[in-house]
Amino acid sequence: MSRKTQEPAITSVTDLPVEEAKWVTLKKISYVDQVGKPRTWEAASRKTRGKAGVDAVAMGNVLLHPSRPASTMVVIQYRPPLDAYTVEWPAGLIDEDETAEEAAVREFKEETGYDCKVVSVSPPQAADPGLSSANMQLVMVEVRLGEGDEEPEQRLEDGEHIQRVVVPLSEFYDRLVEYSKQERMIVAAKLFHFAAGMHFAKTAGYV
Amino acid sequence: MSRKTQEPAITSVTDLPVEEAKWVTLKKISYVDQVGKPRTWEAASRKTRGKAGVDAVAMGNVLLHPSRPASTMVVIQYRPPLDAYTVEWPAGLIDEDETAEEAAVREFKEETGYDCKVVSVSPPQAADPGLSSANMQLVMVEVRLGEGDEEPEQRLEDGEHIQRVVVPLSEFYDRLVEYSKQERMIVAAKLFHFAAGMHFAKTAGYV
Repeated sequence: MSRKTQEPAITSVTDLPVEEAKWVTLKKISYVDQVGKPRTWEAASRKTRGKAGVDAVAMGNVLLHPSRPASTMVVIQYRPPLDAYTVEWPAGLIDEDETAEEAAVREFKEETGYDCKVVSVSPPQAADPGLSSANMQLVMVEVRLGEGDEEPEQRLEDGEHIQRVVVPLSEFYDRLVEYSKQERMIVAAKLFHFAAGMHFAKTAGYV
Repeated sequence: MSRKTQEPAITSVTDLPVEEAKWVTLKKISYVDQVGKPRTWEAASRKTRGKAGVDAVAMGNVLLHPSRPASTMVVIQYRPPLDAYTVEWPAGLIDEDETAEEAAVREFKEETGYDCKVVSVSPPQAADPGLSSANMQLVMVEVRLGEGDEEPEQRLEDGEHIQRVVVPLSEFYDRLVEYSKQERMIVAAKLFHFAAGMHFAKTAGYV
């Protein structure tokens, strides 16, 4: 499905009482700091963390094709918190009884249609440590394509409208910079940082 | 100041009513999606965004010394939302009337003690797009050191306890993996992704 069916539009934004929130909550943390002084901190948390102890996975992916350059698939979707289309790697919340690896394979199939092989699983990382308790793991996956393979169907849930874009790894950073210039588009920080790290390693003289 | 003065400890965590929150808030967003269907989304937001339209900056930094390997400085601090020490690049909120570049130079000086030269400023990036409206810019900075330069004093605000660690860029990724194995420590996702991108560019055969 094209994301151009109709432009999503926000109709209202209201304060959300914490007792009504299902997915996210707001906490006041009281703590004693390094010098024994009592302090407080305001933090957001997800309410959906399961047994894995980690909220989410993102799938850093490489598509390998016999006659095309090594590429990665990014997904573009409307994200209400930003009222914009975001460019991200496929990602999703880990279900109650899943491991990070299981969630990665399941979510990658849902969002991209592809079966993937897990190459590595990162340690848990803090998504936005000054603001929230949210954490995630970066799961690197590989998809090996045959010469004539057709693009598989996505298996999206109701309400998910996710556009897939294949980007050659050699153009990765430049393409994210280009996306950032487009109206109503923003690149996710984790994705941008990974590509910026690749770019830095290739271009900075002293690495 | 050593972070070992005393271990910070949480004394209580309570629901924070949105009307009492000063820094963060919770919003219910009503919107119409791509197929015209009304939907809602729960999101956290910062309440401190100024004229720059961007919440925060992080300083990807390179320290250049005549006789030592090119390095980067990371900061380790206790983060109440995670009840853990995080490893991050120096970062901070952009003040009301500041540009991203000004905030980067000011915050870098406060947290590290060093004057830096701004090398590049990224487009705005979405910090955690499924959860919050928070955004940030990655500002790459350079510090040129002389042979006998002493480490300058930090200029921390009351309550800030930030440990500086210099990591050679050639060891960057491995050191973050090592930090992740330590008790009560977690690496920030943006920093980890940048280092993982460097590692990927250097080690993946097909880039």
